[in-house]
Amino acid sequence: MNDFIFHNPDKVYFGKNQINHLPEELLKFGKKVLLVYGGGSIKKSGLYDTVVNLLKTNGIEIFELSGVEPNPRHSTANKGAQICKKENIDVVLAVGGGSTIDCSKGVAAAAVTESGDVWDLVSNDVWVTKALPVVAILTNAATGSEMDGWAVISNMDTNEKIGLGGSALIPRVAFENPEYSYTLPTYQTACGAFDIFNHVLDNYYLAGDATFDMILEFQEAVMRAVVKWAPVAMKEPENYEARANLMWASSMALNSVLDAGTVHGCACHAMEHELSAYYDITHGHGLAIVTPRWLKYILSETTAPAIYRFGVKVFGVEEGLDPMIGAEKAIEAVSNFCFNTLGLKANLSDLGINEEHFKEMAEHACFGSVITGPKELAPSDVEAIYKMCL
Amino acid sequence: MNDFIFHNPDKVYFGKNQINHLPEELLKFGKKVLLVYGGGSIKKSGLYDTVVNLLKTNGIEIFELSGVEPNPRHSTANKGAQICKKENIDVVLAVGGGSTIDCSKGVAAAAVTESGDVWDLVSNDVWVTKALPVVAILTNAATGSEMDGWAVISNMDTNEKIGLGGSALIPRVAFENPEYSYTLPTYQTACGAFDIFNHVLDNYYLAGDATFDMILEFQEAVMRAVVKWAPVAMKEPENYEARANLMWASSMALNSVLDAGTVHGCACHAMEHELSAYYDITHGHGLAIVTPRWLKYILSETTAPAIYRFGVKVFGVEEGLDPMIGAEKAIEAVSNFCFNTLGLKANLSDLGINEEHFKEMAEHACFGSVITGPKELAPSDVEAIYKMCL
Repeated sequence: MNDFIFHNPDKVYFGKNQINHLPEELLKFGKKVLLVYGGGSIKKSGLYDTVVNLLKTNGIEIFELSGVEPNPRHSTANKGAQICKKENIDVVLAVGGGSTIDCSKGVAAAAVTESGDVWDLVSNDVWVTKALPVVAILTNAATGSEMDGWAVISNMDTNEKIGLGGSALIPRVAFENPEYSYTLPTYQTACGAFDIFNHVLDNYYLAGDATFDMILEFQEAVMRAVVKWAPVAMKEPENYEARANLMWASSMALNSVLDAGTVHGCACHAMEHELSAYYDITHGHGLAIVTPRWLKYILSETTAPAIYRFGVKVFGVEEGLDPMIGAEKAIEAVSNFCFNTLGLKANLSDLGINEEHFKEMAEHACFGSVITGPKELAPSDVEAIYKMCL
Repeated sequence: MNDFIFHNPDKVYFGKNQINHLPEELLKFGKKVLLVYGGGSIKKSGLYDTVVNLLKTNGIEIFELSGVEPNPRHSTANKGAQICKKENIDVVLAVGGGSTIDCSKGVAAAAVTESGDVWDLVSNDVWVTKALPVVAILTNAATGSEMDGWAVISNMDTNEKIGLGGSALIPRVAFENPEYSYTLPTYQTACGAFDIFNHVLDNYYLAGDATFDMILEFQEAVMRAVVKWAPVAMKEPENYEARANLMWASSMALNSVLDAGTVHGCACHAMEHELSAYYDITHGHGLAIVTPRWLKYILSETTAPAIYRFGVKVFGVEEGLDPMIGAEKAIEAVSNFCFNTLGLKANLSDLGINEEHFKEMAEHACFGSVITGPKELAPSDVEAIYKMCL
């Protein structure tokens, strides 16, 4: 069993009637707020007005960074960092999904550096222990960024999409109102749900040697919640229980509770980040295409028992089969969930992606080494998996 | 579904090789430490020497409060508070089980009040938002105090045992090394295990209307871990995996993860606190006696499905039965776990307790009102349950 540190000081206000706590939480950090958001969907939904009114009536001064991209760019984060420096911003308020929160973390980290360039931190793999405080209002159950210490930043000049981590990046406060995700389109709901699912699966200990049964069972419970509620949210976008389950699953998947004593894996995420970096596709969709192929690729007598168990516990695959056969059924169940239940297109070619860049993408994904996990993946393995996805 | 706030900033170092982080964590608060411990078992085990050496070699000044009782007294906490005031203590370091940590929280809270009397806070039901920081080194998997914001303090002058709560009482840092619980006697191991079990069961939503499936399933996973590993730890006191599972279960049971959206119940705990207050018995043993009787007493067509489900999921009671019959089997399984597996005596009379004080204990347990839960309990209900326990 591995030693571990559990520490997640994020204060989460979850539910319908929590937003009025926003001013008191922001004022703990100061009166100057940088409001960060994306393409304007929060204006349509009315959330923008709610937030701005709350802040203004409490004497909070608002500066804005809008237009954050779905795969947030380092250049956008740098723009935000410049505003923070110039205006002496006290706290960065992200209103949106994972991209907006990730960008806000990049802003918060870069704002306290001399260069103000987030890419200096990303490219030097700096563990961020100093940053402006980030407060998040979540509108999309997906990335878990509302409760974790990671941001994924893209540099489109160099086709790189890389994680920036650090204890200072965990939001100080997060507001999670499932109603804020009612307006999310079906496709985004599906992609977000699979992102959550894969955060857990990437970390599910597939060599069958889990250190804590209870943690393994927590992981299974979160994946079951996604399997149960994602199709409900897709059919009934204003089903509160469905949206609430997905939202809390998003946070639980990455708030470290499911990590205790495990080795945090990220095979599919590492492979997918290259797809988004090169082709700017929706992260959750890329994951859905990669995941069943990855499972097929790593399937062996060693991994079969755990993959089979996962199939039994999460998808109700029948018990008592030969582990290899059971594991194959589990992988079929994942494919069925991705491509039928969630309705996502199954192949990279459907998204206009061919094998042109696979070789260099595979090199990037391995960061000059291998991707660790239940089976180590060298660049040649990653390239083979990409080809299976065509 | 209920709104909720999740916030647990406690930083937990879990595992074998973590204690060297103690000085750096203490020094964040200052150089003057009040070391709080119980009857000296930490001296026998060598933990006392380890801690004192670590502190001294890092220039930390140590003051001591020893002799904390199993049901910690307000008078002992007050003694600690006086030391803190006189010596300008920066941080309270608890080394021991739940009683030592609870007492340390009482010290930390009282130390910043004018009177320095913890009973002023307890008896006025003050929600503690200001206290000295508490750091805990856990030696007994049981109360969850290492990760929660509660302390239970006893006043033997008035036969009162009452909880003191507050955000400031959550330990800032906790060290959980399962090896520190190796020397725990079998009886204490059993009592601690049932305390953990009941923390979850008291909070298990027995009206069958859980808001999050995943939270209900987390609760079941933690109870299963206790059922699986408690007998192992009793037979093999130095089984690391058993001690680790119980220790992390202790923390998970009360760190708020299992609360999300539920109504936190405490029926058995409220009833047991009176038993300890009047007769100074071991808390976990009192709980083991009360719990199966409580389940019997609240069993009805309304509660049967949830009690049955709990039996299926936690004890493997067979599926497909009539809910009332299934629920009865679940309650039998609880009794069997308490009185056979854990080997605890089944009746209050075995502990020398008769019905003399039941009436006033029942009044106390209800705090002049009722105990909420799957079935509301008035004093007459509580008295009836006590009588079932004879």
